[in-house]
Amino acid sequence: MRIRHAGLRSRVTSAEDAAAIIRNGDTVGMSGFTGSGYPKAVPLALADRIVAEHGAGNPFKVRMWTGASTGPELDGALAKADGIDFRLPYNSDPIARDRINRGEMKYFDMHLSQVAPMAWQGFLGDLDVAVVEIVGIREDGSLIPSSSVGNNKTWLDRAKKVILEVNGWQSEALEGMHDIYYGTALPPERVPIPLVRPDDRIGQDTLRCDPDKIVAIVETDKPDRNAPFSPPDATASAIAGHILEFLGHEVRMGRLPASLLPIQSGVGNIANAVLSGLVDSPFERLTSYTEVIQDGMLDLLDEGKLTMASATAFSLSPEAAERINAEMHRYRGKMILRPQEISNHPEIVRRLGCIAMNGLIEADIYGAVNSTHVMGSRIQNGIGGSGDFARNAYISIFMTPSTAKNGAISAIVPQASHVDHISQDVQVIVTEQGLADLRGLSPREKAQTIIANCAHPTYRPMLEDYYARAQTESFGLQSPSILSEALSWHDRFVKTGTMMP
Amino acid sequence: MRIRHAGLRSRVTSAEDAAAIIRNGDTVGMSGFTGSGYPKAVPLALADRIVAEHGAGNPFKVRMWTGASTGPELDGALAKADGIDFRLPYNSDPIARDRINRGEMKYFDMHLSQVAPMAWQGFLGDLDVAVVEIVGIREDGSLIPSSSVGNNKTWLDRAKKVILEVNGWQSEALEGMHDIYYGTALPPERVPIPLVRPDDRIGQDTLRCDPDKIVAIVETDKPDRNAPFSPPDATASAIAGHILEFLGHEVRMGRLPASLLPIQSGVGNIANAVLSGLVDSPFERLTSYTEVIQDGMLDLLDEGKLTMASATAFSLSPEAAERINAEMHRYRGKMILRPQEISNHPEIVRRLGCIAMNGLIEADIYGAVNSTHVMGSRIQNGIGGSGDFARNAYISIFMTPSTAKNGAISAIVPQASHVDHISQDVQVIVTEQGLADLRGLSPREKAQTIIANCAHPTYRPMLEDYYARAQTESFGLQSPSILSEALSWHDRFVKTGTMMP
Repeated sequence: MRIRHAGLRSRVTSAEDAAAIIRNGDTVGMSGFTGSGYPKAVPLALADRIVAEHGAGNPFKVRMWTGASTGPELDGALAKADGIDFRLPYNSDPIARDRINRGEMKYFDMHLSQVAPMAWQGFLGDLDVAVVEIVGIREDGSLIPSSSVGNNKTWLDRAKKVILEVNGWQSEALEGMHDIYYGTALPPERVPIPLVRPDDRIGQDTLRCDPDKIVAIVETDKPDRNAPFSPPDATASAIAGHILEFLGHEVRMGRLPASLLPIQSGVGNIANAVLSGLVDSPFERLTSYTEVIQDGMLDLLDEGKLTMASATAFSLSPEAAERINAEMHRYRGKMILRPQEISNHPEIVRRLGCIAMNGLIEADIYGAVNSTHVMGSRIQNGIGGSGDFARNAYISIFMTPSTAKNGAISAIVPQASHVDHISQDVQVIVTEQGLADLRGLSPREKAQTIIANCAHPTYRPMLEDYYARAQTESFGLQSPSILSEALSWHDRFVKTGTMMP
Repeated sequence: MRIRHAGLRSRVTSAEDAAAIIRNGDTVGMSGFTGSGYPKAVPLALADRIVAEHGAGNPFKVRMWTGASTGPELDGALAKADGIDFRLPYNSDPIARDRINRGEMKYFDMHLSQVAPMAWQGFLGDLDVAVVEIVGIREDGSLIPSSSVGNNKTWLDRAKKVILEVNGWQSEALEGMHDIYYGTALPPERVPIPLVRPDDRIGQDTLRCDPDKIVAIVETDKPDRNAPFSPPDATASAIAGHILEFLGHEVRMGRLPASLLPIQSGVGNIANAVLSGLVDSPFERLTSYTEVIQDGMLDLLDEGKLTMASATAFSLSPEAAERINAEMHRYRGKMILRPQEISNHPEIVRRLGCIAMNGLIEADIYGAVNSTHVMGSRIQNGIGGSGDFARNAYISIFMTPSTAKNGAISAIVPQASHVDHISQDVQVIVTEQGLADLRGLSPREKAQTIIANCAHPTYRPMLEDYYARAQTESFGLQSPSILSEALSWHDRFVKTGTMMP
């Protein structure tokens, strides 16, 4: 029995009835982070209702807040129904992305650590309804969080009405894995967050919610959007190899402990390759303080290489999700899921000295990184937590294949067409070609290092040529540029389909 | 008697003898922040020596670290002598700036909060010599800090040899005003910094230094580089008026306490205009947690409007410096000078919820800010502490006149030619034309607001035209752009001397 609070059992209803509570123009706070723990029934029913309303000639759109990305039953369905007026803080759904890039949907791309505190600041407006997936309800009415925590604490606190989805697909063994910190506040009442090691527990294992606000409970049995795991390809393995070599060098130089420092790694193929590489590395007793727990970490935990992983969500393949659910006893005590305002908090990231590893779309020769806008204008996903980690990391690493679209796009460009990470926050850039350690270098030294170590051989001569001419044509020589050419590679790609002349 | 430690009195020597200790290729850590508390004799003697060595055909250059900007006797003299190979973390000296922009001097432009921790990380190399101005030496050998603290704690801890300048011009009444926190560490040993209010004292009032490392003490009597104060002009007053109106509105909306939150303000005319405006404002019991204490704050302290000011340095006019020195009894207990790693620490800035107010060179229509590179390549000063404060502030405000160079440059441009502050960290932009509150807006809403509220009427139609065409020509419509035109205003300025067609 998932709903152990007797009084709340009477609020169980259908997804359709629950969705009927949401009104046109409402601001809705949804659970969900990286395809985990998002509501799977109410958003679909809401999408159906929106389609019906639109068919009847009635306006119906909502403003939607989430933890980060969700799944096709949420972002996909609501975007397809043209039911989202405004969206924050992160999106990876292709249908929603298309709407945003056609100018049909407003998207506010935020640092993930700032969503909860900014919701409290008030300028984002009121939160009308929260729709939150949970694993169950305890006798005392407290809520057992699901496979992501995200901003659920804040949505439950701020929303006028709460709709819960109790998902029977989620393992009951998740109970006790979470650490929900209730010590945050608005200034001037803020105090130090008492977390000094990745495995510290500073809160409670359930979410609070005023039972009077719970207007509907819907029972579901649907899996998370778990993406299949593909083993690292040669490019990802090469990138991982460069990073592991660099970390080994830092240990030998006495600049990193042999157990490294808490690892943050973005999602995806390259991140998993790095994690796989760590299994065979000489590093021992590793820890992770990051956003998501992904496949590669399970092997590290199994091998005893990783002593613990702290995150705000799972981001697993279906096989890995099954493995965790079946063998929770082996993983319990080695994983903690926290609110994203804590998993990504600059205070903690700086204190712990995380080694941050994030992907990028493009980097320029001076080390500025574009993580969000393809060709400067078309949003891919969003900045996510990369800014929270990169600026405060002990070492901030950005990694990417040196080309994209079969070589039509160079990841190293004369000038980034959009900037998400300024050169001060980008200390190491890695491609399959090699690694550029930019720490302590002037811009001109950075340019030489990035071009020589990271650019693809096809584009390297073009970058060398640009940089050489910039030295004579530039207005100033701190960061030499040719203004009429700085974005010409992007312009060429848009017009011809390739950055190659 | 300024040197109360008997054993150290014997180390007093001439500036020339002290400068002779510094060798070609040494890395030298100098005191100094915003023209306060920098050494004034040894750098001049060093510059003379460098000129002599160069005259004799010998190479002589140093790598130089400071707190922030210094004075003509330091950066100016050494740059003129072509004696600086590498410089961090901030510079405002015109001679050094010219060398940098001619490609003759390497400059690593850093977040000011990160200098000390990165010096400890080790990748910047060893620190051979520290040259630090102080007010005096106590009987126990501890050092009484001068008019800036900057990175002195770290230079004294890290340097192999220490040269002190005891400056008799600095008021002895500075003793006791400082708060030097010795609780920092490298991870994994970092702990929460126990500062929860701007007036908290968490350290000691002197600097430690191993007496065995002190190789020379030079007595000086030279004033700081204190710039004359000019009363706010109409543009600065208009900008200040918009900001004060905005803050009043936030208080009325219940989004700020009536005493606001700790104020951080950059240096200069506009910042002083805002501070002057606060004297006549309805806000009471204000506090300041910032980098520098400037003229405008003294009036606020005198009026009782400001209860305390925390910073890492003074940045005063000669008259204000005299006023403080003469009436220290009135200001004691209302001012604290701290190491810049604490005055600018992201953990503290976020906890206190600072209201950050910083200047800019240009902002683009999507709210990205360029604080450092004129026309994308020529460095002006550096990012300084603006990134430490802007990303972590409760409200991050950037302010500027809407044009520069008699209208030849628009401060609002289609695309920033260099980015120091990404749109996520820029919440309010203010010019004399008006204020754009960008919080919670999508990029297209930001563009409309910035163009309408902040652009100068001369450039507004050009921006409207660009933005309108970008809506139809752009690759994606999240942040519409025309790649071939995005930097054309800058290119036109470089080629014709004006951004106007």
